[in-house]
This record gives sequence, C-alpha cells and structure tokens, in this order.
Amino acid sequence: MAFLNEHFLKLKAGYLFPEIGRRVKAFCEANPAAAPRLIRCGIGDVTEPLPPAAIAAMHRAVDELASRETFHGYGPEQGYEWLRAAIARNDFRDRGLEVADDEIFVSDGSKCDCGNILDILGAKNKIAISDPVYPVYVDTNVMAGHTGPANDAGAYARLVYLPCRPGNGFVPEPPKRPVDVIYLCSPNNPTGAAATRGQLEAWVHYALKHQALILFDAAYEAYITDPTLPHSIYEIPGARECAIEFRSFSKNGGFTGVRCAFTVVPQSLRARDRAGNRHPLHPLWLRRMTTKFNGVSYITQRGAEALYSPEGKRQVRALIEHYLGNAKILREGVERAGLKVFGGVNAPYLWVRAPRGLTSWQVFDKILHQAHVVVTPGSGFGARGEGYFRLSAFNSRANAEEVARRLQELKW
Amino acid sequence: MAFLNEHFLKLKAGYLFPEIGRRVKAFCEANPAAAPRLIRCGIGDVTEPLPPAAIAAMHRAVDELASRETFHGYGPEQGYEWLRAAIARNDFRDRGLEVADDEIFVSDGSKCDCGNILDILGAKNKIAISDPVYPVYVDTNVMAGHTGPANDAGAYARLVYLPCRPGNGFVPEPPKRPVDVIYLCSPNNPTGAAATRGQLEAWVHYALKHQALILFDAAYEAYITDPTLPHSIYEIPGARECAIEFRSFSKNGGFTGVRCAFTVVPQSLRARDRAGNRHPLHPLWLRRMTTKFNGVSYITQRGAEALYSPEGKRQVRALIEHYLGNAKILREGVERAGLKVFGGVNAPYLWVRAPRGLTSWQVFDKILHQAHVVVTPGSGFGARGEGYFRLSAFNSRANAEEVARRLQELKW
Repeated sequence: MAFLNEHFLKLKAGYLFPEIGRRVKAFCEANPAAAPRLIRCGIGDVTEPLPPAAIAAMHRAVDELASRETFHGYGPEQGYEWLRAAIARNDFRDRGLEVADDEIFVSDGSKCDCGNILDILGAKNKIAISDPVYPVYVDTNVMAGHTGPANDAGAYARLVYLPCRPGNGFVPEPPKRPVDVIYLCSPNNPTGAAATRGQLEAWVHYALKHQALILFDAAYEAYITDPTLPHSIYEIPGARECAIEFRSFSKNGGFTGVRCAFTVVPQSLRARDRAGNRHPLHPLWLRRMTTKFNGVSYITQRGAEALYSPEGKRQVRALIEHYLGNAKILREGVERAGLKVFGGVNAPYLWVRAPRGLTSWQVFDKILHQAHVVVTPGSGFGARGEGYFRLSAFNSRANAEEVARRLQELKW
Repeated sequence: MAFLNEHFLKLKAGYLFPEIGRRVKAFCEANPAAAPRLIRCGIGDVTEPLPPAAIAAMHRAVDELASRETFHGYGPEQGYEWLRAAIARNDFRDRGLEVADDEIFVSDGSKCDCGNILDILGAKNKIAISDPVYPVYVDTNVMAGHTGPANDAGAYARLVYLPCRPGNGFVPEPPKRPVDVIYLCSPNNPTGAAATRGQLEAWVHYALKHQALILFDAAYEAYITDPTLPHSIYEIPGARECAIEFRSFSKNGGFTGVRCAFTVVPQSLRARDRAGNRHPLHPLWLRRMTTKFNGVSYITQRGAEALYSPEGKRQVRALIEHYLGNAKILREGVERAGLKVFGGVNAPYLWVRAPRGLTSWQVFDKILHQAHVVVTPGSGFGARGEGYFRLSAFNSRANAEEVARRLQELKW
C-alpha cells in the first residue's frame, strides 16, 4: 500500500495569491466601471520585452535545431560550458571573485534551485529563515520534513524565524543559538532591503564559526545601485567555505517566461555526516543535477549567453534602469502620500508601512477599492509582514506614474 | 553544523557512460586512423532536426517575447492550459481514455518527473524495479533514502528487483510479496520490450489488490507498431486508481535539447498516511510543482503544442518512422550476424545477446575495436543486463546501414 509524504499535509493552503485573486475578482464584478482602470502591482513578474540580443540569439538557436548538421540534443545537465564560462567570468572573475566555471550549475529557475538544494542536505539540520520571507524557503522545508506543524499564526515548529524590522534595516542578525542552514535573500523579496558588507560579514563569521551553511539568494543583485553594497556573498572572505549562491536571469534579462538561472556551489564547501566526517557538497549537487535534471533548453541557454554580449549588457542595464525608474516614481509617490516606505532603491520592491495601525489586508482592500491598484499584503510573507504591503516596480512607466498619482490622492 | 544527505554516499559512481567515454577515447588515441570511422549507437539521443511545425511555432513564440503587447512572463507552473488541453485531447480523450486537462502536468523532462515524483511519496514504501532498469529509478530512490547500501553486484538493499528475461518477454511479472511502488517502463529502455495488454492487466490487478502505486514510464509509446499493444496504462480498467504515467516529447518530437514532457496524475489516485487514511495525490503533486518549479519555457510549450497540429503530427510520424526504419535495418543486420536480438520493433532500442558467453564489456570492446561502433554494455543497466548490449536506433539512415553492415562482417 503506497504511502504519501505526509509532511505535505502540514502545509498551509497557498493562500496569499489565490486570496488576492478572489478579492480582485469580487471587486471587478461589483465595480465593472472601475475594472478597466485596475493596475496590478502585486506579483513580481517582469512586463517589458526581452533584450533584442537574446531574441536574436534564440532565433539563431531555433534555426540550428532545424538542421541535422547544427542540431543539438541532450546538453550537459549542468549547462553548456560556454554559458558556464560566460557566467563565471562576467559575474564573478571580472569582478575579482574566485569562481570557477565548473562551480556554476545552470538551471531552469532559482525557485527550483532553492527547493532542490534540500535534496543534498540532511534531515537533521536546524533551519533559519527571515520573517517576512519568500514563502518557497519555508514550504520546501515543510515538504522535506524539516519542520513540525504550523501554529495558528502560520509559524512552523523547528524553524528558526529571524525577525526583520526597521531597526535592523530588514536584514536579520545572526541568532544567539546555533543554526545549521540559513536562508538569506539580498536584495530582499519582499522588503527590498539589501544587506551591507558588514551585515554579510557578520553572517559569514557566524557560519564559519558554527560550520553552518548560508543559502544566499541573489536573484535581484542587478538592482543594487549603492556601490558599497555587495552583489555576491563571495565578496566576503570565507564565503567559499560556507555559502551557496542562487542567481537568476528572470529579473535582469526578463527571463521569467524563458526559464534560466544558476547556482554557485564552491568546490571548497563542505558539510558533515552524522559521524562528523566532512564531505564536499559540489559532487553531491553535480550528482543530483545529472540524475534528476536534464539541462536547460538549448534555445534558452543561447539567449542567456547573449545577455553577456556588449549589446546584451547594455540592454539588460536599460531594463533594470526602467524598473528602478518605476521604483523611484512609486517611492516618491508613496512618500508624498505620507506613508513610510522602505526598499525600492536597490531592489524592484517597495515595502510600505500601513498607516494608522491598519492591517495588511485592510490596506490592501482600501487601495483596491479606492485607488484601483492591486498590492501584496505583507502578512502573506510571515507574521512580521503584518502591517506592511509590497509594491512591485515591474510595470510600464505610465502605470507606475499613474499608481504614484493615485496613491497620493488617497485619503487615509 | 550543516548535515549533508548521506544517502548520496551510498550511490555507486555514475560509471557506465564515463567508462564508455574512457574506452572510446583510449581506442581513438591508439587508432587515429579508425577514429573518423567511429559510429556511436550508445546514448539514446535523437539525431534528426526538429519538426518544421515546432520550429515555426518557436520562432513565433520568440517574436512574441520581443514585444510588450505579446510578452509572456511567468506561466502557470503546471503548464499553459492550451498545451494541457492539446495533450489530454490528442493523447488520451481522442483515443477513448478518460484524462482531464487538469490531470496533465507539463514539465521539462521525464527524467525530472521520475525523480521528483518521490517528493510526494513517503519514506516507508517498498519499491520494486525491473532488472535491467533505467538507472534513474534506482538512483533517485537511493538519494531519497528508500534503500540500504549496495552490495558488490551493485544491488541496493530494500529495493525489490524484478527479473526481466527472454522467458517473460523482458516484462516482469508481479512479485509474490507485496510491494508499494512499482516502476514500469514500456516500451522499455534498455530492452526495447513492450508490455502486452495482459501483462499490464496483471500489474493493475496487483496494484489494486495491494493498493500499490504504478509509476508508468511511457516515454517511448510513439514507437509502438503492434496495434494490440497498449500505449497508455490508462487503457487498462482500474489504472486511474493506481497509476501515474510519464510521457515525453524527447523521443517523438525530438525535444531532447528543448526539454518538454508531462506527467498524468489522475484525480482519483490515492495513497495512505501512516494512520491508514487515504488522500488524493493530485493536490500534492500540484503543490509540489507550484512550489518547486516555475513552468516550462513559453517557447518550448508553443513548440510542443505545434506537434499536435495536423502537419506536426505528420512530421512526428515521419521522425518515428525514420528511427524505426533504422531499428529494422539494425535488427536485420544483427540477426544476419547470427546474434540473438530482442526489441527494435516497438521501440528504438535493440537488446542483443552477446554470443559465446561473452560479457557485456567484452562484446563492447570487440565491437569497438573491430567494427568501430560504440554500443552500450547491458551490465550497466543491472545484474540481469550482463551478457547483453543495447543498440540505439537514433542515428542517420546511412549510419544505421553502415553499422548493420559492419556487425555482419564481425567474426565471433
């Protein structure tokens, strides 16, 4: 008789975006005249077309597959060497960081990698996450049996929640107690906060001291504007001994629908077995990827490679500047509306304090009904997100300007 | 201190294809004159260009991503509705099989799905696999901790190995003892055997009786030529209560480099928790996919959809006939060489008995050195593969003819 993985039964319903959808639908049905005015600043999905360099490269790749002489079947599961080399050189070695080509693992998404990385980690780890947090970190650990059940507030037993608040710039401090695996996301989804060098140094110091592993999600690194902020955990000495880094082409090249990302697993990274022996993690991840994955579409990989061409880099830069321009407009609008806002400077997300003690859902409803704008309630990202909402800068310029205008007109 | 998943340490080295590569390389270095003559019939990767219908659809999809008005970002994790509908209608409902659109989960590969399906299954299942077997079924269970260590012959404790031999047509019979999860692959990689309706009925009967789960890998169903053989497990009454089916576009549409597959999880399928309560698996797989996966490239999905157009279907049929034509030529060549051959009629693989008691590696070496052809040693697929080798029909017609000719000239 087949057994299911009953850890899945602990999962809270994937409640946030369905509930947003339900409320938006109800509003539009009750207010058909307002529906065409609706602007969505909720989900963090890009809106602008792909860089022309990627488009051209993908057309060429499709044509290659149309001819026997240039056809490509299975590629290396961990990515083509030309893409791994372009990534390692451009994103790391040209910036003075030691990352070898074979430490780059090309994948179809950071969400996948963040979840799949648990395959190579043991069941006994004490896991620390931020609060508020990108829900995938939590849910994948629940599925893997690394937590107990959730309490009424949605917090899972055995997870260590690290509070993010204005006082720590929404970047958590290392805990007093030892933990084994720490998820850090910088620039952060949902808060838009970016960790300083000092903050990351404290984490690397902690990880080395406790032989802990940092899972560093840098999917939004391209949005960093402050030149003093690290783009990679490997800018911190010692990180190659304690950190895995996740990167993505989703939010720089706009590849959310094309699917390409990569993970950096240094050869020098080790974890221990129950007997206390330490083993390198790189061969485990290589084995995981070659066994349970078959590589990213050749077309997609050629598109990603083109983002590193001179014109590709310019086009990516223009995309980032577009979204950061939106973020600036939204930020100024929110500030002029008298609301307290965080983020939006080194990230495409703004994290806004709900005024007058309103809850996240109360402010969501007010903005939906009075400004016809969809935001994301902060409480959907964890208990410490209550009283905030997230604004996404992924939009057209006209929509960003209109949202800023409408938010200023709101009477609180 | 971070713990690794020490089940990975039980894995035998991924020995087969690296060892083939090592021997081929050594041969070519020692025989530079022979190297250009080398023909590879080892790895099961397609060689012919993609169907023109898929090429045209992917060009259109790339163009859509070049314009804001037609841009596509994140799609549904489980696949676009238009592709799920095309699959469910063409592959199932038009053939009289009850499969709903929302029971289709589009993915980036059957290898991924075969491995990832274990995410939703419990740790206490008794797992049955065929011998010989596609190694991914074994290795993913080792990684998930469902086995003990391997013995010297490479067999893992706690796995139930089901022998495949000429006497059962290389399709295993249900075991006497109860097992919980059974992997069946038909048409089979590596043996090329295809299960009869009676054989599958016996398995469904067994699964229903023991409330077991069948994981049915039908990646090669398009190669079935015998009209009496089932293409889908769902042709067997009761299978919707006991089976998950894996399908792929890799070997029909030639998508090995483009990456698209799908898994069918019937709403009616259930598994039990430790308390004996039975739960549907469909919501668990949906949750797994929406949490740990972000969908297949929009470009790829449009390419897959085009395989179901009238011209796409004709082009896929022509590809299959090409490879089956190769299989026929190879089969006749092997037979004329006096060797005993199985498969190659309803599958792109031939399973050939090594003559005169030679081992798989001995025959591999002889064919490499004397015919300059690379085959796959059967022992790489399990203990019961010893004494066989696999020939792949994925090649050009000229190469298939040349291989058949050379094999006939070999003196055994």
